[in-house]
Amino acid sequence: MSRLRAALDPKSVAIIGASDNPNKVGGRPVHFLGKFGFAGKIYPINPSRPEIQGHKSYASLQDLPEAPEMVIVAVAGDNAIAAVEDCAAFGVKIAVVMASGFGEVDAGEGKAKERRMVAAAHKAGMRIVGPNSQGLANFGTGAIASFSTMFMDMDRAAEDAKGHVAMLSQSGALSTVPVGFLRQKGIGVRHTHATGNDSDITVGELACAVAEDSEVKLMLLYLESIPDKRYLEELASIALDRDLPIIALKSGRTDAGKAAAQSHTGALANEDRVVDAFFEHHGIWRAPDMRGLVEATELYLKDWKPQGRRLVAISNSGAVCVLTADAATSVGMPMAKLAPQTDAKLKGILPSFATTTNPIDLTAALLSNSALFGDILPVIAEDPAADAFLIGVPVAGPGYDVEAFSRDAAAFGKQTGKPLVVAATQPSVAQAFAANGTSVFPTEVEAVTALHQFLAHRELMAKTRARRTALAPGEALIASPAAETTMLNEADSLGLLAARGIPVVPHRLCLSRNEAIAAFNIIGGPVVVKGCSADIAHKSELGLVRLGVNSADTTGDIFTEMEQIIAKNGSRFDGVIVASMAGGRREMMIGAHRDPVFGPVVVVGDGGKYVEIVKDTRLLLPPFTAQDVRDALQSLRIAPLFAGVRGEPPMDLDALVDAVVKVGALMRDPAARVASLDLNPVMLGSEGQGCVVVDAVVFHGV
Amino acid sequence: MSRLRAALDPKSVAIIGASDNPNKVGGRPVHFLGKFGFAGKIYPINPSRPEIQGHKSYASLQDLPEAPEMVIVAVAGDNAIAAVEDCAAFGVKIAVVMASGFGEVDAGEGKAKERRMVAAAHKAGMRIVGPNSQGLANFGTGAIASFSTMFMDMDRAAEDAKGHVAMLSQSGALSTVPVGFLRQKGIGVRHTHATGNDSDITVGELACAVAEDSEVKLMLLYLESIPDKRYLEELASIALDRDLPIIALKSGRTDAGKAAAQSHTGALANEDRVVDAFFEHHGIWRAPDMRGLVEATELYLKDWKPQGRRLVAISNSGAVCVLTADAATSVGMPMAKLAPQTDAKLKGILPSFATTTNPIDLTAALLSNSALFGDILPVIAEDPAADAFLIGVPVAGPGYDVEAFSRDAAAFGKQTGKPLVVAATQPSVAQAFAANGTSVFPTEVEAVTALHQFLAHRELMAKTRARRTALAPGEALIASPAAETTMLNEADSLGLLAARGIPVVPHRLCLSRNEAIAAFNIIGGPVVVKGCSADIAHKSELGLVRLGVNSADTTGDIFTEMEQIIAKNGSRFDGVIVASMAGGRREMMIGAHRDPVFGPVVVVGDGGKYVEIVKDTRLLLPPFTAQDVRDALQSLRIAPLFAGVRGEPPMDLDALVDAVVKVGALMRDPAARVASLDLNPVMLGSEGQGCVVVDAVVFHGV
Repeated sequence: MSRLRAALDPKSVAIIGASDNPNKVGGRPVHFLGKFGFAGKIYPINPSRPEIQGHKSYASLQDLPEAPEMVIVAVAGDNAIAAVEDCAAFGVKIAVVMASGFGEVDAGEGKAKERRMVAAAHKAGMRIVGPNSQGLANFGTGAIASFSTMFMDMDRAAEDAKGHVAMLSQSGALSTVPVGFLRQKGIGVRHTHATGNDSDITVGELACAVAEDSEVKLMLLYLESIPDKRYLEELASIALDRDLPIIALKSGRTDAGKAAAQSHTGALANEDRVVDAFFEHHGIWRAPDMRGLVEATELYLKDWKPQGRRLVAISNSGAVCVLTADAATSVGMPMAKLAPQTDAKLKGILPSFATTTNPIDLTAALLSNSALFGDILPVIAEDPAADAFLIGVPVAGPGYDVEAFSRDAAAFGKQTGKPLVVAATQPSVAQAFAANGTSVFPTEVEAVTALHQFLAHRELMAKTRARRTALAPGEALIASPAAETTMLNEADSLGLLAARGIPVVPHRLCLSRNEAIAAFNIIGGPVVVKGCSADIAHKSELGLVRLGVNSADTTGDIFTEMEQIIAKNGSRFDGVIVASMAGGRREMMIGAHRDPVFGPVVVVGDGGKYVEIVKDTRLLLPPFTAQDVRDALQSLRIAPLFAGVRGEPPMDLDALVDAVVKVGALMRDPAARVASLDLNPVMLGSEGQGCVVVDAVVFHGV
Repeated sequence: MSRLRAALDPKSVAIIGASDNPNKVGGRPVHFLGKFGFAGKIYPINPSRPEIQGHKSYASLQDLPEAPEMVIVAVAGDNAIAAVEDCAAFGVKIAVVMASGFGEVDAGEGKAKERRMVAAAHKAGMRIVGPNSQGLANFGTGAIASFSTMFMDMDRAAEDAKGHVAMLSQSGALSTVPVGFLRQKGIGVRHTHATGNDSDITVGELACAVAEDSEVKLMLLYLESIPDKRYLEELASIALDRDLPIIALKSGRTDAGKAAAQSHTGALANEDRVVDAFFEHHGIWRAPDMRGLVEATELYLKDWKPQGRRLVAISNSGAVCVLTADAATSVGMPMAKLAPQTDAKLKGILPSFATTTNPIDLTAALLSNSALFGDILPVIAEDPAADAFLIGVPVAGPGYDVEAFSRDAAAFGKQTGKPLVVAATQPSVAQAFAANGTSVFPTEVEAVTALHQFLAHRELMAKTRARRTALAPGEALIASPAAETTMLNEADSLGLLAARGIPVVPHRLCLSRNEAIAAFNIIGGPVVVKGCSADIAHKSELGLVRLGVNSADTTGDIFTEMEQIIAKNGSRFDGVIVASMAGGRREMMIGAHRDPVFGPVVVVGDGGKYVEIVKDTRLLLPPFTAQDVRDALQSLRIAPLFAGVRGEPPMDLDALVDAVVKVGALMRDPAARVASLDLNPVMLGSEGQGCVVVDAVVFHGV
């Protein structure tokens, strides 16, 4: 670890506001540094006591024999600010500020105090964690600069120091709750950091540093707000380079959650669908909740190299077979179709009333013959269709040789090198399998959900890596829209798109009645006639859209009429557009905007008037590949229509994909200055007929 | 218990095939009857031993001093059949047949053997449980006629005999796995029955008997197939009468699950969406998986009378506040909006950096003042907007007065009488709350999910009860469609609907060119002209649909043309329909068919050509009320369109609701003989403009 070394592996730690009581905020770090074997110097600072928890206590920072690399600021309010300034002046490298009551409470004065602390620190080359931080805990080095209550009932467990999981969070509670779950499963957590208000060192920056610890094999994040994406992008890149999976729980998914987050952190809310797209784009798995954050952890710590998702399930209960098939299908894991020779071999081993097709039901016959289990596993192991295995043992105990099952399962797991999970309700049975190193879950649903997450996450990481290879390197454009954006008129909007090779409806911008008549004659009726003004967003409401116009004269009359309407409206008259009545089979939409945090976002999906109601769209963050667009389109609810249903020919998906890729490039091009665009409908035709943008609104200004 | 008393509370039990080894199928029941305090006579039958597990053993049934009320048949294969026949002849009332290898393996000979056993039994007035049954277990009476391994590590726990949960299942494993989960939570299960192949007594019939046990306060069902709905309907009715909630886990939700179920039970698959509708119709909560079956159990055992779903959350972690708001919103529980006086009072108690809006964040201040918790609860208790409460304590321990928290929470729960759950990860904290009788879950997600299920299930039961009151009594028509159904031609289909008051498009059936011309002149153009033949299902493909016909002469010409097409096709010519071009704002659909198990099913939703792709429909089982239809329509994805969006007026939902109610009545009327109908599109207009069936296909034959 070279980055932020003093935060993760300091040579010396001082505690301002140290307490002799290990249950006080200022007492906890002193207690933990001793308890968890920190090898560096410990300097409690408290003028009223000669000794704190067995360590010599100092009256002030200035009394220390050296400038400590890290100082924990455990005093409150303005005293914390003074302490930080002292630290900066004294040559401290990292200050961990636990005091609360800053930006999280008061976006005005509270935030200003934070900024003053950070300014003082940066002037002296010091960095700050917090304020409002529960602290940092690196069990690998014993540097536990934290007041977490969770660590009180932990011993210096060797498995933590040797653990391979890192947990980073802004919240204190959420930095330790996952740790509690993992410890209950016997999984050690090497890093547990809570960065609080992120006034200087953010959770993302710290995560980049932690990702350099080669002992870390899985990183878990809890995020309440993402004010800046840069470190997360860098983190994702480091993680992909060293094949480190990252699982993130980002709260504030719902409006109520966003409101709660805002009243508790004061941070701006992120648009949740964009957060989804951002994580997906970077190969980070987004956990839906706490369970999803931790539940699959042990699968990540195996050295499995999965090849696919096809599941084979084996149980002594037919019902568990059925429930497993349901659960697997629901999450998106198909049941493997076993080879005929596998079936034949299984039939030779199992009783006639057992089921030899997958899922394999051993039936209660296992009660009379515990060897059945060990006999069939090698047969199944050989089947090429099997990517992963689930063994369901809902009930066992006296009469069953559970020890043999667990030995056989462990040997089988080793033999295949493929993912294997066990579902066992009874603690005694679960413990027997776990003791032999097999991953056990209470029911088939948890087992299949964890297995699916692990496999799908691995696929996502591979896909992300492939995209990095396919695309030229280069930063996505981060720039936010300017405070003032201006709407282009429709002709300019269409022109801008056409210049980028995005097909738009054949049209003419006409500046006179005669031009309109000529346009009709060239384009051929029926046509659409639309008034064109950069001042008018909602044309239909003013009568500025006329469909199915059938004659040149009428077109001319409409020109005159629309010119008058626009004049009466006091708007700028940019002309009248005469356009083809574009055909096509489905109204699609392509949209794009710039998220204030995540930058350009492209939206693609089912279009038409009710796009906000039908809500069948997907988000993509540029840069993306044609395959990314295709995958997004194929995951729409209306996706079956693309192949053609009820005897229809396929639609021209390639053309739509190409248009979306071009919109992605447009949004990344600073010269284009596009703040947002809304192309709806984009008429999609049959294969070979392409797609065409019919209506377009583009806003300029970046 | 009057029904099936000998199955649940026999005075005497004999075991054919009794074993001295308590781990053999024939040894387990002897062991359990002793262990769990069965007070009746126990008669092991085994000719090769004088004594079995301390009980005198008999050589044969005929050697017994009396006809036992119940006999457990623990011998295999054909011996089991012979034993059942012996039992019937000897005057036994209930035979529990454990042998497998019958209908579940072989739908031919296996099923035939079952039928022969049942016939022999019924002739003598005996009833059969099984075959392939793991057996029955009534801990209330100690009648444990089961070979479940799960019971081996259970003592005669007093709490089971006093338990209030009944678990019924066809599967053996799934009859006991939920019991294992509940025991881990300290919840006693009074009944645990596995009925196996249901050749005679089905799980539904047994459930009706168990529902008469007044000690049962919650019934759990695991079902793999529903070959007959009658007992489930009766069960639902008994349960509603005595306010007994029922939760059902029905597997085979997916195609893979259905295939697995079929290869393991041989039973026909149920259509899963109809199963959903059936349970909903009868007030039964359908659990998605094993967790959903058991997770909310303890909430049902409180005597809460919930009034609504608005949640108040309180935590010492802001992150848990956010995650709780997310979780609650996701499942459909709004966060309560607290009164201004509540906020004012909270501000007087909590430190300035705490959050007093709901969710209420006590912050880490709780570490320095454990009394905060007890101080605010009475304030919140008084708020009228609070329907239910969640207290999140993600981390506590040394430094916190957890005992006081749990006492305060319990007192608060008593004070309000409203649902209260706690989310606590640490076992020590969870135990402290549980010890005071509060329901504890590991995270806010489980807590909110369970709370929502309990509240939503109570609402469903109330709604079901209201429907029973609103509707005239009367059986839903169960009849399946006849083997042969016949399609009505479109004119007859429309006529049948019109006769029931369902609005259909204005049309004339014309038998001559002149009639067609006259029809055009009466209806007024443009019209639709359609060839009419009961032989032709797909008119469009033969060119028998012409839209937008604008003149009387053309109408006449089309008549002639269509008459020829139908003749050439060798089909019966029923005439030509001339119909209005019906307007409207949205193409809806109404469908109906007869499910072979569940009877009439009505489908309503978004219509048009792509109804199968768009999949925005809901199922309703008649009889249903207008409110049921309205609720179904309002739960569609397109529901926002009904109120009007983007300045549009509302649509005439009343008219659509009325049409659906009439279709429901039609499907219940035996005289109508409708096997199925497909009305698509049903054009829905603006308020006051009604709806109108444009295309209709009705099949006759019930």
